[in-house]
Amino acid sequence: MKYYKDLREYIAFLQSKGQLVTIHREINKDTELQPLVRCQFHGLQETERKAFLFDNCTDVQGRKYNGRVLAGAHAASTQIYAYAMNCRPEQIPEKWEKARRRPIRTRRVESGPVQEEIHMGDGLLAHGGLEEFPIPIATPGFDNAPYFSAGNWISKDPDTGIYNMGNYRGMVKSPVKVGCDNLLPQHLRTHREKYKKKGAATMPAAVVIGPTPNVGLVAVAKLPYGVSELDVAGAIAGAPLEMVRCQTIDLEVPANAEIVIEGEIPTDILEREGPFGEYTGYIGRAKMNLLLNVTAITHRKNPIWNIFISQCPPSESSLMTRLGLENIFYNFLKHDLSVTNLRAVGFHEKGGGRQFCVISLEKPNQGDVWRTLNGAASLAPIHAKIIIVVDEDIDPRDMGSVVWALCFRMQPHRDLRVSPGKATSLDPSIVPPADIKGNTENPYGSALLIDATRKWDYYPVSLPKKEYMEHAARIWAEEGLPALNFKEPWFGYNLGFWNAEDEKEAELALKGQHYQTGEKIAKNQIKG
Amino acid sequence: MKYYKDLREYIAFLQSKGQLVTIHREINKDTELQPLVRCQFHGLQETERKAFLFDNCTDVQGRKYNGRVLAGAHAASTQIYAYAMNCRPEQIPEKWEKARRRPIRTRRVESGPVQEEIHMGDGLLAHGGLEEFPIPIATPGFDNAPYFSAGNWISKDPDTGIYNMGNYRGMVKSPVKVGCDNLLPQHLRTHREKYKKKGAATMPAAVVIGPTPNVGLVAVAKLPYGVSELDVAGAIAGAPLEMVRCQTIDLEVPANAEIVIEGEIPTDILEREGPFGEYTGYIGRAKMNLLLNVTAITHRKNPIWNIFISQCPPSESSLMTRLGLENIFYNFLKHDLSVTNLRAVGFHEKGGGRQFCVISLEKPNQGDVWRTLNGAASLAPIHAKIIIVVDEDIDPRDMGSVVWALCFRMQPHRDLRVSPGKATSLDPSIVPPADIKGNTENPYGSALLIDATRKWDYYPVSLPKKEYMEHAARIWAEEGLPALNFKEPWFGYNLGFWNAEDEKEAELALKGQHYQTGEKIAKNQIKG
Repeated sequence: MKYYKDLREYIAFLQSKGQLVTIHREINKDTELQPLVRCQFHGLQETERKAFLFDNCTDVQGRKYNGRVLAGAHAASTQIYAYAMNCRPEQIPEKWEKARRRPIRTRRVESGPVQEEIHMGDGLLAHGGLEEFPIPIATPGFDNAPYFSAGNWISKDPDTGIYNMGNYRGMVKSPVKVGCDNLLPQHLRTHREKYKKKGAATMPAAVVIGPTPNVGLVAVAKLPYGVSELDVAGAIAGAPLEMVRCQTIDLEVPANAEIVIEGEIPTDILEREGPFGEYTGYIGRAKMNLLLNVTAITHRKNPIWNIFISQCPPSESSLMTRLGLENIFYNFLKHDLSVTNLRAVGFHEKGGGRQFCVISLEKPNQGDVWRTLNGAASLAPIHAKIIIVVDEDIDPRDMGSVVWALCFRMQPHRDLRVSPGKATSLDPSIVPPADIKGNTENPYGSALLIDATRKWDYYPVSLPKKEYMEHAARIWAEEGLPALNFKEPWFGYNLGFWNAEDEKEAELALKGQHYQTGEKIAKNQIKG
Repeated sequence: MKYYKDLREYIAFLQSKGQLVTIHREINKDTELQPLVRCQFHGLQETERKAFLFDNCTDVQGRKYNGRVLAGAHAASTQIYAYAMNCRPEQIPEKWEKARRRPIRTRRVESGPVQEEIHMGDGLLAHGGLEEFPIPIATPGFDNAPYFSAGNWISKDPDTGIYNMGNYRGMVKSPVKVGCDNLLPQHLRTHREKYKKKGAATMPAAVVIGPTPNVGLVAVAKLPYGVSELDVAGAIAGAPLEMVRCQTIDLEVPANAEIVIEGEIPTDILEREGPFGEYTGYIGRAKMNLLLNVTAITHRKNPIWNIFISQCPPSESSLMTRLGLENIFYNFLKHDLSVTNLRAVGFHEKGGGRQFCVISLEKPNQGDVWRTLNGAASLAPIHAKIIIVVDEDIDPRDMGSVVWALCFRMQPHRDLRVSPGKATSLDPSIVPPADIKGNTENPYGSALLIDATRKWDYYPVSLPKKEYMEHAARIWAEEGLPALNFKEPWFGYNLGFWNAEDEKEAELALKGQHYQTGEKIAKNQIKG
C-alpha cells in the first residue's frame, strides 16, 4: 500500500480501521485531555487501546482553540504502531531493519501545506505565538507547564550538513520560548556544541509537529550519529520525504507537517527545564538545559497538535521503546553475537519497555544461555536491568509463562548472577534523589541475570496432547462460548523424560484398556 | 443466605448467576471433556471462567452413561469459589478463619439420598462397579487411566475416632480397585500406619464424590492433625453436616452426597500409582502407594460425578491452593509474627498458586521487610520459592505492578538473598528426574528473597493526580467507551520527594500562569 500523504490521510485510515476515537465535546486540554487518553493505558488490554482526536479544546482560562489534538496515533497499541509503519505487526522488525540499511534521501520541494499560514517578524505574535495551539498539560497536578511531547527537533551538523531529527520534550516557557531536554551524547546537543566551538552565538533549529507518522517513529529511534532520521523515514514510506525551506532559518522541514516552530538555540546559556514525568513511572528531576527562541511559526489551516502519551508505563512511548529495543536486542544477539538459536526478545511494558527483558532460545545449552545473558547485559548499560533467558516454549511477553519458568526451571543458588555497573540513569532505586547533583552524573546500579531454562529432560507438560486441545477448541467454538486467546502452554508435550512403557500405558487408556495396566501393576505389588 | 442443601441446589444457584455452562451434546469423557473445560483456563481471563455440567457422556468404547459430570464448580474463578463458600470474594479469608476457629460437629441421620441406590456383596458389579460412572481421563495422551480428581477420602483415627477427610487422587485400576496417592505426613496415611501397628490387615475408608461444595473445599485445605475437616465444613455452612452410616464399613459419610465408594485399604501392600499430572505443569512420577478394595458403591439416582481441573496451572486446583495459601501466609505473618503493617499476600497462579509469592507492607522499614521475607521462607518449606516484598501501592496479584517495583525499587546487589534448604518436592529444576529414587526422598533447592520496596523518598508517580483521572473516567463512561478495569497505579501521588516550590509551580500551571515560572527560570540562567 502507498504511504499516507499526510497526517490527515493517516487519521482517516485509522478511523476506517476502527482505531480512532473522536471526542467532539469540549475538553479542557490541561485537566481533561491526557487523563482521558490515559484511562485506556491503565484500564484496558493493549489490543483495545485506540488513537484519540479532540476537535473542541479549551483550557483552564476558558480560551477556545481552532486546532485539534491527536494522541495515541503512533503507538497506543502494537496494531496502531504497525499501521504507522504501513505493515503488519509481525513485519515490524523486518521493516525497521530494511529502512535502517537502505535510507532514502529527502527531496526538496518549493512549497508545502505546512506554510499555509506564516507568523514571523512583527507578525510572530499575531495569533499568540505558541498560545495559538492547544498544547496539553501531560500530568496535571505535577507538571509546571504544557510540554511538547511529540516535537521532532531538526538541526544539522555545521561541518557535514547532515541532519539530525530527535524527539525531545520541551517546556513551554513563554509564547516564544521553549525549553529542550537535551544532554550529551544526544545529537542535537552535539550539533549545538559544534556551533559553540565555531563561535556562533546561536544554532538554528526547528520543531516539527504532526508530520506523517513515519517521521515520529524515526525521531524516537536511537540511530547512529551521522545517519539522518529523515532519510530512514523515507525508507519506511518507500519514497523520499518532501522538504520545504524554513522562513527564518537555514533548515528544511517536512512540507506536509501540521506545524513547524522555527527558532534559534543560544550556545552560551542554559536554563532549568523540568521536573517532568519519566518512563520509570516517577517524575524526573529538573536539569539545566537548552532553550529555543522562536523566530517563526508556520502551520496548515486548522492545524493538528500531536502528542505522545508518555510518563508512567504502560504508555504510548513505553510501547514504542519496547518495540524498538526488542528489535535492537534481537539483531545484536542474532547477528553480532551469532546466537543462532535465538527465538524471541520481549521487554515488559511496566519496566518502561526498557528494563525487564526476557529472551527465549531454542534448545539452549549453558554456553548459549550465559553468552546471551552477558551479551544482553553488555549491549546497553542504561537498559535491561533484569534479564531472563527461557526455553523456546516460554512466551517472553507473557509474564504468566515467565513466572512458570522461574518457578520450575530455575534454582536461585545456581542460576542467577548479579552484575555491577548498570547505569540505568533514571532508576530512583540506586541512590536517594537528593544525592544526585549536576546534569550528567549517573550513579551505578546492578543487573540481575537469570537462567530459567531446563537443565535436563523433564517429564511432559501436564496438559492434554495438542490434538485433544485443538479438537476441544473446535467444540468450544461450536458451542458459541467466548472467543479463546490461548497463552502458552495450552497443550501437553514431551520434554524428553517419558519412556516407551509410559507411552504404551497412555495409549491403552485411550482405548479403554487401562485395566491391563492395573493388572500389570498388581503383579508388582510390594510389601509396605 | 442459607447454605445449599445439596450439590444440585448449588448447581442451580450457579446457573441462576450465569456461572454454569451446560453441555448437552455427546461428549467423550476421555478425549473431549477435560480438554474442553481446560480451554477456558488457557484462553480466557480468570473472571470469564465458568463451571461446566455435562449430561451426555460417552467414552472411547462408545459406552453411554446415565450420570452427569460437573467440573470447575468449586474454583474455576474466585467468584465461583466465593459462591462455594457462600460469601462475597472479599470475605473469603475471614470466613475461613471463623470456620477454622469454630468448627461445628457433624450430625448423624438415619438415611440420606446418597444411598438411594446401593451396590454391594454379590450385587457389587451389577451396574459395573466403578464402570457405572463417567470418570474422565484428565490428560489424554499422557494419563494411563481415569483418575479421581475430586475424591474426598474419609477415614478415622483408630485411637481417638476423630475423622480425617482429604482430597487424594486415585488411579482407577479395576472396577473394584482404586489407587490412592498418599504418603506420610498425610493424615489418611497416618491413620493407615496406626491400623497396621495395631495388627489390622485393612483400614476402612470411603471416597465421597459430589457432596456440597464446602466439603470439597475443606478436603483440599491442610488442617492440623486431629481437626476433622467435616466439622470445619459444617462451620462454613453454618450448620452441622448430616452424616449417614456406610453399608459395609464402620464409617459415616455425608448423607446428601452424589456417590460414595466404600472399601478397605490393605495395611501390608503397596502398588504403583501414577505417573499423573502435577501442579508444577509437568507430569509427576509414579510412586508405590496405597490402594482401596471396593466393598460397596452407593449413590443418588442419576448421579453427578464431580471433578477438579488440576494439573498444569492455571487450573481450578491452583486457584484453590492460591486462595488457601494467601490466607495461611497472611495469618501467620500478621498474627504469629505480628507484622502489623502487613497489607496483602498474593500467590501467582502460574506458580501453581504455591511458589511465586508477593507480599505488600504499609510503609515498611528494612526490619519489617526482612522479617517478612525470612518468616515467609520459614513457614512452609515446600511453598514460596520466590518471595518478593513490595510497598502498599503495589498490587501483589498484578504482575505488571510487581515488574514495575522490581525494575525501579530494587537493586540486585543490595536487595536480594538466596536461601538454601527449600524443599519444593515436585520442583523438577532441583535434580534430574532419574536421580530421584524411592517414595519420600525430597532433594533440596533454594529460595529467592527480594526486597522491592522504596528505600527513601521518591519523586511523585508520573500520572495525573487522582481527581483528574477520576474526572476523566467519568467522561470516558459518558462517551460510551469500553468499561475500564484500572490496575495500580492509575493516578499520580506524592512519594515524599516534592517540595513547596514544585507544588506551587504545578498549581500555577493549572491556572494557566506557567509563564510566571518561565520568567523565574529565565532569571536564573547560567552560562553553559
